[in-house]
Amino acid sequence: MCPYLLPQTDFLKGKMAVMVKLEKFREQIRTELDNVVNFWLRYSHDTIHGGFFTCIGRDGKVYDELKYVWLQGRQVWMYCRLYQTMDRFHKPEILEAAKAGGAFLRKFARVSSSSGQWKCAFCLTRDGKAVKIQRTIFSECFYIMAMDELSRVTGDKDMQLEAEQMMEQLIYWVQVDSSGLGRPQLPGDVPTNSMAVPMMLLCLVQQLTEGRGQEVIQKYRDLGSWCVQQILQHIQRNGTAILENVSLDGAELPGCQGRLQNPGHALEAGWFLIDYSAKLGDEELQRTAINKFVELPYQYGWDKQHGGLFYFLDVDGHCPTQLEWSMKLWWPHCEALIAFLMAYSQTKKPELLERFSQVYEYTFSHFPDAKNGEWYGYLTQEGKVALDFKGGPFKGFFHVPRCLYMCERILDDLLASTA
Amino acid sequence: MCPYLLPQTDFLKGKMAVMVKLEKFREQIRTELDNVVNFWLRYSHDTIHGGFFTCIGRDGKVYDELKYVWLQGRQVWMYCRLYQTMDRFHKPEILEAAKAGGAFLRKFARVSSSSGQWKCAFCLTRDGKAVKIQRTIFSECFYIMAMDELSRVTGDKDMQLEAEQMMEQLIYWVQVDSSGLGRPQLPGDVPTNSMAVPMMLLCLVQQLTEGRGQEVIQKYRDLGSWCVQQILQHIQRNGTAILENVSLDGAELPGCQGRLQNPGHALEAGWFLIDYSAKLGDEELQRTAINKFVELPYQYGWDKQHGGLFYFLDVDGHCPTQLEWSMKLWWPHCEALIAFLMAYSQTKKPELLERFSQVYEYTFSHFPDAKNGEWYGYLTQEGKVALDFKGGPFKGFFHVPRCLYMCERILDDLLASTA
Repeated sequence: MCPYLLPQTDFLKGKMAVMVKLEKFREQIRTELDNVVNFWLRYSHDTIHGGFFTCIGRDGKVYDELKYVWLQGRQVWMYCRLYQTMDRFHKPEILEAAKAGGAFLRKFARVSSSSGQWKCAFCLTRDGKAVKIQRTIFSECFYIMAMDELSRVTGDKDMQLEAEQMMEQLIYWVQVDSSGLGRPQLPGDVPTNSMAVPMMLLCLVQQLTEGRGQEVIQKYRDLGSWCVQQILQHIQRNGTAILENVSLDGAELPGCQGRLQNPGHALEAGWFLIDYSAKLGDEELQRTAINKFVELPYQYGWDKQHGGLFYFLDVDGHCPTQLEWSMKLWWPHCEALIAFLMAYSQTKKPELLERFSQVYEYTFSHFPDAKNGEWYGYLTQEGKVALDFKGGPFKGFFHVPRCLYMCERILDDLLASTA
Repeated sequence: MCPYLLPQTDFLKGKMAVMVKLEKFREQIRTELDNVVNFWLRYSHDTIHGGFFTCIGRDGKVYDELKYVWLQGRQVWMYCRLYQTMDRFHKPEILEAAKAGGAFLRKFARVSSSSGQWKCAFCLTRDGKAVKIQRTIFSECFYIMAMDELSRVTGDKDMQLEAEQMMEQLIYWVQVDSSGLGRPQLPGDVPTNSMAVPMMLLCLVQQLTEGRGQEVIQKYRDLGSWCVQQILQHIQRNGTAILENVSLDGAELPGCQGRLQNPGHALEAGWFLIDYSAKLGDEELQRTAINKFVELPYQYGWDKQHGGLFYFLDVDGHCPTQLEWSMKLWWPHCEALIAFLMAYSQTKKPELLERFSQVYEYTFSHFPDAKNGEWYGYLTQEGKVALDFKGGPFKGFFHVPRCLYMCERILDDLLASTA
């Protein structure tokens, strides 16, 4: 054999091996996405009162009829996204479900608060009566996601306007005056920069501007930069840790709150940043996102003994006070899968694909329920199912399908570009 | 040997065996109480700002300086109770600590709310600035317990008056109008009878009336009866289950909230009821308390596989949505020990002492830390330490010493009466 041809052959062999691997991932992920969508289509629709049941047991039975607004909004968003962007989900059944969920939200989720502003409830009865209002911005975030995405499917300009109006209120609460959220102003309750807030706002900036005209993009440009700057403040301890809560000027806070780490959140922020930096063509931000928000949280967040990502950690090694700190939850694993695959697709660094494979292996061997479909959400540190329901107050049709959807799309692009 | 003496001898032998057993329990419990008191005397006092640190790590180090008001009030109460009723704790050090804690509470815990009523904060900074206010009555409950008990030690009538004034406000919130608690009135948020509320109020009735004159006893008599009636409403499903939340007219509620069981709470309510019924000489209430609030929660709450009491259960066998449902927490075991020993002391039924022994065996072999002192609070279902601190936002100087104190006193009485 001609010696000059050998490296070329090895290179091709290596490329082929990667493609085979990626193709295998795509195949499994596509099948899993189909299964998960079918589970929610089958069990979650309330055909009497509208909206979605989200408290769904291991076998699909509804064990509680309360409707959690985060999850209503997320399910509308997810259905719309699947309907719009994947041929096999472009079905009337999915469109109708998204519309019905949107109608339920518009009719019941918004409740006026004492300050005269609109707040969204956190939880509703089956027939839409408000049960609880959280003093945070997150119900509103998922309301906005739902309305904006639905407006793209239906072409309903009112919905888009409603999403943007709610967004204005959110920005006001976060940047100007939070009193409308209903929390009493207390002298010891120093305002903080909590990861979830700039992360969700960045997600919404991406949501509201994607594919829209220059006017809208311009409108949210400064907010996007502000979110990035706020997220980057969470890099602490000379770049060796991501902390969940920092002061408004980016310093470490005292006590448990200041030392808290949430690897899943950091990883989620990571792929939001990679996505954002790709759109801007900002390579430095991309590097920071991958090094600090993807590789670093994996390093400190992965359980070397039992595998899987811890839910909470304390940067100084104290025991977190959250009772569930050592449990393995589904969603940090979903975020890690997206983060590593996106990071790989942007850089083609083999070690990032390696990490993806490792998280994939743990995730697919622990969370899915082969018998009844969908994923368990909550495992013990050792990886045993601790709570066996498929949907609950915080687990709905969102993290699992979003992860599978994002991964399938990234794999489509990778396979198309390397073919 | 004379055959007529034999049964008498057997009886005496049996009695002797029980006394030896009780004496052994008392010895261990007394030693453990000494150790636990020393731990908190040594590590929890803030000599600079007053009050108590409660976030204390496995080795005694303070890992967070926040001061949780429930725990401040409970520690004041516990110190006073020990000082007043047990010779070996009648020491200036303990009295001074109780006074200092009381002064801190009086200075900082009460914050005025928007409705013009007094609310107590849930959490304060080290120097007493309010961080968080809960929209419930429990900070106020422990404030009252602290003030009333401290007034008994110091003879300070103002404190007693303050406790009774706060109590009036509590009763108003619970029985007349809860809007002062700050929760928005929502159409889907139906008022419920949650076990914790009548249970805590009954505890406060006992606290405020114990040893006081007829006027005070008379004042709270109706409230006491009301609390008992509210607690008994939690007996559901034809007497086969204690449910944590019921409707105001004593019917089962729908969904997870309605099916929730909290064996530790039921057991705690159990010994409150036994204690109350003993004071009234109400034998029927005593029987109900023992059968329904002590034996029953043990039957459904004890983990037959791994031992220990579950934290939460669903009466229909669904998986609870609380992530910590299967964990073994220190305080339900403390309540179970008091409940079984008190039930035994009232009835002398051997099977109740048997149960006490069983809970004792699990508790003393799993929770105490022989090396550094005090008890771990949170174990996995299998009994492994899951959170290794000795104090946290909800674990202070209360359930462990109260349990040891109550058990030692009951054992003193049992041994004195059978001697």
